[in-house]
Amino acid sequence: MFEQLLANNAAYVEREAPAPLDVRPSLELAIVTCMDSRLDVFASLGLAHGQAHVLRNAGGIITDDTIRSLALSQRRLGTTSVMLIHHEDCGLQLVSEEGFSRELEEAAGERPPFAIGAFVDVEASVRTSLGRVRSSPFLLHRDAVRGYVYEIANGRLREVG
Amino acid sequence: MFEQLLANNAAYVEREAPAPLDVRPSLELAIVTCMDSRLDVFASLGLAHGQAHVLRNAGGIITDDTIRSLALSQRRLGTTSVMLIHHEDCGLQLVSEEGFSRELEEAAGERPPFAIGAFVDVEASVRTSLGRVRSSPFLLHRDAVRGYVYEIANGRLREVG
Repeated sequence: MFEQLLANNAAYVEREAPAPLDVRPSLELAIVTCMDSRLDVFASLGLAHGQAHVLRNAGGIITDDTIRSLALSQRRLGTTSVMLIHHEDCGLQLVSEEGFSRELEEAAGERPPFAIGAFVDVEASVRTSLGRVRSSPFLLHRDAVRGYVYEIANGRLREVG
Repeated sequence: MFEQLLANNAAYVEREAPAPLDVRPSLELAIVTCMDSRLDVFASLGLAHGQAHVLRNAGGIITDDTIRSLALSQRRLGTTSVMLIHHEDCGLQLVSEEGFSRELEEAAGERPPFAIGAFVDVEASVRTSLGRVRSSPFLLHRDAVRGYVYEIANGRLREVG
């Protein structure tokens, strides 16, 4: 499988070697979303190379690591807006906070040094993450932040008010 | 800008509404890479919808949050391999660990609850992250892990041995 992906990459380089671009995203935008395999961020938003930072983790939730990345994005790489995208049928809806945390502790013999981020209601989870961006003392730009749900069944984004 | 991205998304839905797919990635693969705007993971690896989880943060480094995401990916969503991709001309090479941490502390009035992850040598950083996956007690699959550098100037992946 790794070899197949490297062959795909060689074909990509041959076909459309990307032009050199600045490290700073031209839309001054950072997008935070889920690691889900069914979400092609560039294609589904019509993004071109060099336009936006793309941060992805389980759920697309705002964690300490997301704040670390956004702090670098805003303070060194010029982004000023944040777009949060969660989705339905998410892996974080398959586990409970306590149950999965306990499973990890039992497997590892130590308590995980992170919250799981499990959620039931996707819109409530977007609002929680919006609140974390808006209240983080480490970020420079906390106002131009908008939250969305990606409808995995049809690819459509809807805004969370 | 948000409206333009929503219009792009509406055109995408019209043009190529994705087929419903299982939440479990068909290649049983999780890819960890940088948030850099010049890296289109799906295109540069020839990925199709539904094939792989994609985790992205500043640097593509393994942090507690990456371990959280990989634990869910492996324990609930069936992935068994990890592909790490860092790149040159990375934002984490623009800062120093101590300097950026101090900058955040001075701006926020509190010490950031995370390491910055600054690095100089991209291949050394890949090796550090490989080691973190291979030694994490929270993961089920720690052997099929390979590391790469993405050459931002031409889109080519090279393996880090």
